[in-house]
Amino acid sequence: MHVINLEEKFGQFTDQWHPHVVADLNDQHVKLARVRGEFIWHSHEAEDELFIVVKGQLHIDFHDHTATLNPGELLVVPRGVEHRPHATEETWIMLVEPQATRHTGTVEHALTRSVLPRI
Amino acid sequence: MHVINLEEKFGQFTDQWHPHVVADLNDQHVKLARVRGEFIWHSHEAEDELFIVVKGQLHIDFHDHTATLNPGELLVVPRGVEHRPHATEETWIMLVEPQATRHTGTVEHALTRSVLPRI
Repeated sequence: MHVINLEEKFGQFTDQWHPHVVADLNDQHVKLARVRGEFIWHSHEAEDELFIVVKGQLHIDFHDHTATLNPGELLVVPRGVEHRPHATEETWIMLVEPQATRHTGTVEHALTRSVLPRI
Repeated sequence: MHVINLEEKFGQFTDQWHPHVVADLNDQHVKLARVRGEFIWHSHEAEDELFIVVKGQLHIDFHDHTATLNPGELLVVPRGVEHRPHATEETWIMLVEPQATRHTGTVEHALTRSVLPRI
């Protein structure tokens, strides 16, 4: 049980689109990711996903609109909803979601990371 | 499914130690609270509680130490662990925890709020 400083944790990795776990609660993970460029269209069958932007700007495409999140903004993507995150500049995001969540959802892709480092 | 701006949401209430719900995911609530002064010693029997400081400074007393969280810092208080939050200046916190969580835990107190407004 210790205080987690986001800036310090983001300083511990540089790879993109690779979530790192910083905390656990109620069978959920709190994850951090640096993202830039375009992710893939995917959905999570049984997991809602909380996105919080810490730095930069995150766009999330849905089939009917695009959401844009700035620092201090958050969005819940409900289970089953197809979405595609993307960012023009490097963006730091925090995620809260069930431990079972695969970040590429039901899609197997070159970006899929099965091991999420714990920092 | 819409973008939640924390600053805008905190602008919608002024009462202290009264969590307001801004989002739901996986049977959890995302809650915001303005806090100043001292809360009560309490614990949650079955729920881990994520504290994130948005503005100000939050102290959380435990029986063996005190944790201090500044903006951009977070802490998970595991289920069963007695704790007492307090803040000298008005502090804005975000919480993620199961919907069943009572903010005063197993303690019934004048500060207990059974209705959590949704904003």
